[in-house]
Amino acid sequence: MVEPVGNQYVVARPVYSENSFGDQHKKVHRYHKTFSDHLRVYFSCSPQKAKNIATTLLPITSWLPAYPFKEWLLSDFVSGISTGLVAVLQGLAFALLVYVPPGYGLYAAFYPVIVYFFFGTSRHISVGPFPVLSIMVGEVVSKLADNENDGNSTSVNETLLDNRKVQVAATVTLLAGIFQLLLGALQIGFIIIYLSQSLISGFTTAAAIHVVVSQLKFIFQLPVNGCKEPLSIFCTLEKIGRQITNTNIADLVTALIILVIVFVVKEINERYKAKLPVPIPIELFVTVIATGVSYACNFKDKFNVAVIGELKKGFEAPVELDMEVFQSCVGDAFSIAIVGFAVAYSVAKVYSIKYDYPINGNQELIAFGLSNIFGGAFRGFAISTSLSRSGVQESTGGKTQIAGLLSAVIVMIVILAIGFLLEPLQKSVLAALALGNLKGMLMQFKEIGILWKKDKYDCMTWVVTFLSTVILGLAIGLAASIGFELLTIVFRTQFPKCTLLANVGKSNIYKNRKDYIDIYEPEGVKIFRCPAPLFFANIDFVKEKLIAAVGFNPLRVLRKRNKALRKIRKMLKKGELQMTSKSFICTVTGLEDSDEELDNNKIEELDQPTNMADLPFQIDWNADLPANIRVPRVDIHSLIMDFSAVSFFDVSALRILKETFKDFVRVDVDVYIVGAHDGFLDKLERCAFFDEELKPSMFFLTIHDAVLHVLVEKDVACSPTSKPMKQELGTGDHFIINTNGELRNREHVIPAVTKF
Amino acid sequence: MVEPVGNQYVVARPVYSENSFGDQHKKVHRYHKTFSDHLRVYFSCSPQKAKNIATTLLPITSWLPAYPFKEWLLSDFVSGISTGLVAVLQGLAFALLVYVPPGYGLYAAFYPVIVYFFFGTSRHISVGPFPVLSIMVGEVVSKLADNENDGNSTSVNETLLDNRKVQVAATVTLLAGIFQLLLGALQIGFIIIYLSQSLISGFTTAAAIHVVVSQLKFIFQLPVNGCKEPLSIFCTLEKIGRQITNTNIADLVTALIILVIVFVVKEINERYKAKLPVPIPIELFVTVIATGVSYACNFKDKFNVAVIGELKKGFEAPVELDMEVFQSCVGDAFSIAIVGFAVAYSVAKVYSIKYDYPINGNQELIAFGLSNIFGGAFRGFAISTSLSRSGVQESTGGKTQIAGLLSAVIVMIVILAIGFLLEPLQKSVLAALALGNLKGMLMQFKEIGILWKKDKYDCMTWVVTFLSTVILGLAIGLAASIGFELLTIVFRTQFPKCTLLANVGKSNIYKNRKDYIDIYEPEGVKIFRCPAPLFFANIDFVKEKLIAAVGFNPLRVLRKRNKALRKIRKMLKKGELQMTSKSFICTVTGLEDSDEELDNNKIEELDQPTNMADLPFQIDWNADLPANIRVPRVDIHSLIMDFSAVSFFDVSALRILKETFKDFVRVDVDVYIVGAHDGFLDKLERCAFFDEELKPSMFFLTIHDAVLHVLVEKDVACSPTSKPMKQELGTGDHFIINTNGELRNREHVIPAVTKF
Repeated sequence: MVEPVGNQYVVARPVYSENSFGDQHKKVHRYHKTFSDHLRVYFSCSPQKAKNIATTLLPITSWLPAYPFKEWLLSDFVSGISTGLVAVLQGLAFALLVYVPPGYGLYAAFYPVIVYFFFGTSRHISVGPFPVLSIMVGEVVSKLADNENDGNSTSVNETLLDNRKVQVAATVTLLAGIFQLLLGALQIGFIIIYLSQSLISGFTTAAAIHVVVSQLKFIFQLPVNGCKEPLSIFCTLEKIGRQITNTNIADLVTALIILVIVFVVKEINERYKAKLPVPIPIELFVTVIATGVSYACNFKDKFNVAVIGELKKGFEAPVELDMEVFQSCVGDAFSIAIVGFAVAYSVAKVYSIKYDYPINGNQELIAFGLSNIFGGAFRGFAISTSLSRSGVQESTGGKTQIAGLLSAVIVMIVILAIGFLLEPLQKSVLAALALGNLKGMLMQFKEIGILWKKDKYDCMTWVVTFLSTVILGLAIGLAASIGFELLTIVFRTQFPKCTLLANVGKSNIYKNRKDYIDIYEPEGVKIFRCPAPLFFANIDFVKEKLIAAVGFNPLRVLRKRNKALRKIRKMLKKGELQMTSKSFICTVTGLEDSDEELDNNKIEELDQPTNMADLPFQIDWNADLPANIRVPRVDIHSLIMDFSAVSFFDVSALRILKETFKDFVRVDVDVYIVGAHDGFLDKLERCAFFDEELKPSMFFLTIHDAVLHVLVEKDVACSPTSKPMKQELGTGDHFIINTNGELRNREHVIPAVTKF
Repeated sequence: MVEPVGNQYVVARPVYSENSFGDQHKKVHRYHKTFSDHLRVYFSCSPQKAKNIATTLLPITSWLPAYPFKEWLLSDFVSGISTGLVAVLQGLAFALLVYVPPGYGLYAAFYPVIVYFFFGTSRHISVGPFPVLSIMVGEVVSKLADNENDGNSTSVNETLLDNRKVQVAATVTLLAGIFQLLLGALQIGFIIIYLSQSLISGFTTAAAIHVVVSQLKFIFQLPVNGCKEPLSIFCTLEKIGRQITNTNIADLVTALIILVIVFVVKEINERYKAKLPVPIPIELFVTVIATGVSYACNFKDKFNVAVIGELKKGFEAPVELDMEVFQSCVGDAFSIAIVGFAVAYSVAKVYSIKYDYPINGNQELIAFGLSNIFGGAFRGFAISTSLSRSGVQESTGGKTQIAGLLSAVIVMIVILAIGFLLEPLQKSVLAALALGNLKGMLMQFKEIGILWKKDKYDCMTWVVTFLSTVILGLAIGLAASIGFELLTIVFRTQFPKCTLLANVGKSNIYKNRKDYIDIYEPEGVKIFRCPAPLFFANIDFVKEKLIAAVGFNPLRVLRKRNKALRKIRKMLKKGELQMTSKSFICTVTGLEDSDEELDNNKIEELDQPTNMADLPFQIDWNADLPANIRVPRVDIHSLIMDFSAVSFFDVSALRILKETFKDFVRVDVDVYIVGAHDGFLDKLERCAFFDEELKPSMFFLTIHDAVLHVLVEKDVACSPTSKPMKQELGTGDHFIINTNGELRNREHVIPAVTKF
């Protein structure tokens, strides 16, 4: 039937239940790998595998020998110089965010690059300080080092305090590196996919706000100390507000001028991107000019501006670790590890797609872990990659990490030799340069509107991430945001739009019955669609919807029937009701409807299947019963559950489905499940879902199969020959009933007449 | 076609895309209520509504006037007395878990019951102390009050310390009540559905472990102070272990005897449940006997056992609140509010289903909130309902909260008059009674095995909840468990089993191609099934699977084609390739395959659609190209995506789907989406998914519709009349190609011959 007949859909095949389909079409027996098979493969050993592992762990061994010196060295050289100059400036500027002396930013721009050169798999990213990460480290520094200085800032030795700050920053960096290394070694780098795009966007925007606020201190040149998370941002603003009259006007003016220049030139760079060979390196120009002017006019003495001051020449010995700091920054270090890697990986992925080479997430984690451990040990702070600096490296022609290595050489030259040239540079210039990098991040506010139109939940994630990160600080805010984001996944399926389906156009198409005009609904059949996975958070809701859709609560009906049965038995005993072999006649008129109380144990009996074995006939509950017995009508005989969108279910869902389906079966409603996924039947079997009342034969391939089956069943039920046990039934009998759920065609049962 | 023809599935209808189906079957225009409509309904006012709100907020007004005094008062009376006696004992016992003097447990068993009588909707639960909740309050007490006592327990005035403990317990209770009241007033009680059954089971088992450990102190009669979360459980065990030689043997022996008796009698109660009219009130018996023996033999002086001692007669003035405690127990109070309500609601629900009456979750929250506020204000501690006590209340015939009220009267009598009788009772007896209640909770360990068989994720939830609650303490453990549980929902859909489908049995059935033998796969068509919702956490994985399933990366193919095109243009320019109107001939032999570098901007051009407008013919990429041009073959012309299980998608999924589908279209693979849910098209429209390349016409109703459409399209493509723009094509042409994705029937294109 697969050959097309014009543009016609023509099918003729048997009606299939899952069972009959399985009988007709043999399944291939497939060997599913067990856990031990996987282990065996994982721990198997061969020379090839060993070599692969070696090149995976040390990627440089695979690319450096094949490096085309002739073609690439020049562009890597040019790119390395440019990137190195930017790295120096960004290192100095972002060190202010960490609240450590600017010189330490140079270390952060040096050590990690060297390590990444050996272990990294991305060819284009420029490893080094990143504002968001710097402010996260700064958060820890202000939490653990600044408090010792709260209130009496003059009395504590400034140098000691700086050393303490560097120690805290280095320790948290080291710990973050250890986390990254562990995540990479355990091959669980995939956890960063929990940081969705909306979350990262909201988070970095909030981080930009934090950066702006923290840089105000340097722009106004005001002492602000002792603000800790949560709510540090408001505390900082308040402290600045209170001292605003002490602003150093020279610093403020310089910063504003620099900001304007940087913004304008960046705008030009953006607008004439296509025409410019490389973007104008405006940061470099303004730094050189600002340093020159500051030196020439002696700003430091004239206006008392804060300058970088003496940069320590050369490298320092490894940091002494403080175990107490280690313990109290575990959470922050983990956040830093995750954010640092997530940012770097997303940038690396952009270039890997653009230039079509593979990067290895877990190896990247190992590379960043080692970079941070090494950098932290030598008094640097946590690094990732800066989008702008990577852009410089790539756009100036960087082909491999050789460019990165050369940029580290430039940084080294500054550290070892020409650092003194930067001494007269104002800190407020650095602050302005740091702010100049934030435009892109702050522009992300536009996303709120776009996301709102596209997807409300994504928009909510953005807003909640932004607000919680601004208010609670970056580390706690990130944890809260991830929690919320996971919750949105539950939200999306928590209140599914359950619908009743009907046949549209009398073929095999079933759609929401409310949506179409020419619908056909087989009498006594309800088709219910669960449009989501079923689990603890939505199964009660779906059950309610199902009960609302069929119009009655099967458990309640079952209880009423059992109560009625009890009453009938009592009446029979008392002789108020006489019975023939097929019906009964009420001999007493004006019976009272005494709804007597049942004691606790008997209540449970009401939930059992109706048992009419001791009666010589069966009762049609929908027919007229004696006047004092009232049982709700059940207008349906079949319930078809469309499970094609139920991608999984859990134990809670299973339990409630089982209960509910059982209740339906007990009030003589057949339940069919259609469109179940592969493996559902096996899982249900394993969970002891099936029993006397619920059988695997309830599964059908499609809605249409089940509907056809139901319609056929109705006809079969009328022909007594096919069902010998029903032979005593005939039309015209009173209270003719059908308990085993196979005979329910009310059209064929003549309405019963009660005789009083 | 809905009339059954024997047991046959017979359908003949046109092939439907979503568009053509929409044209033929008119949709009903439905008015969807807007947010403001809902608001209007919500804030509308009518006398009936006002009355409803009043009875909702004060449920007693609806049931008390209709109370059938004649029938129910006696059983409520009997039930009230029994429950009251149990409540007294449990109150005293659970007060030990809170680390407050036992007398305060009586307050907890008194005030809240009174409040619940007016505001509660459940008729059968017995409100009052609950071990899990008591231990949670105890956690806060030991955190905030015990530390002041660490080390120098003798130097601090015992009474002062007790007062402090009572104050902390009362404060956290009050705060928990405020949280419950708020949740109820804001109608967000539904959040407790996030506590799945597996989670509650694991949590209560862990709580039972905490209870056991905390009661060891009283059983061995050893001083244990200053253990704080996390890891308090190990700290406590260690302290007990170190002092084990100081055990008071008399206390230990009494406790063990009581424990054995209680367990044995409870076992008898359980086993002869059906035969016993009411369970044997063993707690009552042992308490009376233990008190009598202790008094008669003067245990206190003889063996130095710890006794309850003087219970303060009468009630005490409201507690003085400590704002500092308020601030430092926000998280714990929230956990207590959630757990207390979740337990009470689940018990209430059991009875409401059993006796078929409605309970109102939000009103229950309000009732418990007020109960805790009132109870906390008068020095009680947080309450919920105890399963065992509710069992007593129900099984002894309790019909309404009148029984609860009477139980409160019993408690009041003990508080006001006969409390002194309990003075000689040993604390170790109370501890043993508290442990006696835990059997059911500890038996839940059996669930691990059952869950493991049924559902691995549920089992993991249980184990993680248990471990984190034991190790981190109840409040933090609960938060961590909920986080993990939400993560399992993501896990379940994170690595979906994507499958390629094939036609089975040549009708309209499509199943996993690996599962069946007699499969039919239309040539050049791949049918890919996404068996889960698509969102940030799995979209990359699904994309990878899709690329693996079709066998090529469309973006890479597109780039190769664009590179090849660039090369062909260059060769044409150089004259190395001559072209006719329909083909070209290579005039130079032995061309080098120079894979030259492209600069950065040009790389982006490679991702654009192949543009052959300037060539007088189109290229068949699958035919043989000139020797120096190599492009991967694309063996498929149509990709059908089965979206019937995609219950939702987010912005990340949308973006990646759009990119990927575009790449497929650009390499001349038609993409069809089938089985999309209601509203998908609208949402995609809103998200600007459609454009020149991706059109709404890609949506088809079912897989079979799409397959038939594809097969028809092939035929149509062969008849030149129906597509005038293709008229120049004929068989035998060289490099005959088809860019606009409509003509791709390779059977009809004679393999091209390159002429060198």
